[in-house]
Amino acid sequence: MDKSADSPYPIHDLLRQRWSPRAFDDRPIEPEKLRSLFEAARWAPSLDNGQPWRFLVARKEEQAEYDRLFNCLVPGNQKSAYRAPVLMLSVAQLQFEDGSPNGHALHDTGMAVENLVVQAAALGLVAHQMAGFRVDQAREVCQIPEGYEPVAMIAVGYPGDPVLPSDRLRAGEPQPPVRKPLTELVYSATWEHPFPLFP
Amino acid sequence: MDKSADSPYPIHDLLRQRWSPRAFDDRPIEPEKLRSLFEAARWAPSLDNGQPWRFLVARKEEQAEYDRLFNCLVPGNQKSAYRAPVLMLSVAQLQFEDGSPNGHALHDTGMAVENLVVQAAALGLVAHQMAGFRVDQAREVCQIPEGYEPVAMIAVGYPGDPVLPSDRLRAGEPQPPVRKPLTELVYSATWEHPFPLFP
Repeated sequence: MDKSADSPYPIHDLLRQRWSPRAFDDRPIEPEKLRSLFEAARWAPSLDNGQPWRFLVARKEEQAEYDRLFNCLVPGNQKSAYRAPVLMLSVAQLQFEDGSPNGHALHDTGMAVENLVVQAAALGLVAHQMAGFRVDQAREVCQIPEGYEPVAMIAVGYPGDPVLPSDRLRAGEPQPPVRKPLTELVYSATWEHPFPLFP
Repeated sequence: MDKSADSPYPIHDLLRQRWSPRAFDDRPIEPEKLRSLFEAARWAPSLDNGQPWRFLVARKEEQAEYDRLFNCLVPGNQKSAYRAPVLMLSVAQLQFEDGSPNGHALHDTGMAVENLVVQAAALGLVAHQMAGFRVDQAREVCQIPEGYEPVAMIAVGYPGDPVLPSDRLRAGEPQPPVRKPLTELVYSATWEHPFPLFP
């Protein structure tokens, strides 16, 4: 459990998101660790156990596959992800198997991705999600069928050293994250009425 | 790390979702544990740090507030949640603060909720999400404004004993969960082409 100045209530170490470094080390991810990331996503809960999440994945050594994903990124994200040994694209299945719409597809895909991110943290990896990619291009080059929605590109790898003088990413390192206070996030059963535990 | 028959690759104990019991013990949740649940949600990542998640919460001792949420549940879910000491409603903010649409609002709310669910597991609690509630009624009685979408009711508490002969929930206990194999969830950068680690 971690308790720091900006986290007044203790939460599990794994969940304490620190600033997510954008600089990656270029060493590969061990296959067994990569497998565990998807296994963690697999066990997320979902509405009616629909499991609407899908992942397109490429390692850098699979050059053509990697480039197919990498080339969809907008230039700023290419700059921050270029060292990441693994790129993924999360995709949500918008219908259940019987064809009825799944209004929780994006929500449940988020739950699976968060499991993946948390498992990455448990393995010493960082997973950096990016919404800045060309969705139509991804649909086309990755052959994503109708009924599935590309959600986020995810760069995964070991953290790099952002303070290397030679590292051109240095200037782009984000600041430590800030979060809204709980009084703005948690209400009683009436909107914006304070919940007694967060007066 | 846990490795079981249906989880061929090790994942962190916290993430290994077992079957989520629907029977709750009626003992209250300690205030410090309840605070930690929301603190965990607070630290989830989100697109442009938009933090679109909100939570409406009531403890059973806050009877009017609790009933406001409970009465929105469909009868089947009232039956399984009636002992839970805490009810929540997750809500997604569909726009950024500047009014532009946030297409990742549901996804990012899912990530925050998963943090909450995992923190619950770390504290010996169970959190059971339910999509079966009357959304329009929740909007009205909880005074949820335009631009916010009610997502899921969440019953939280200590697990109950589903094998008590007197427990009328017994017959309703779900089976252990099943999950799709990873070969159906993870592809290379081309749709439905196998990723080499999951041949």
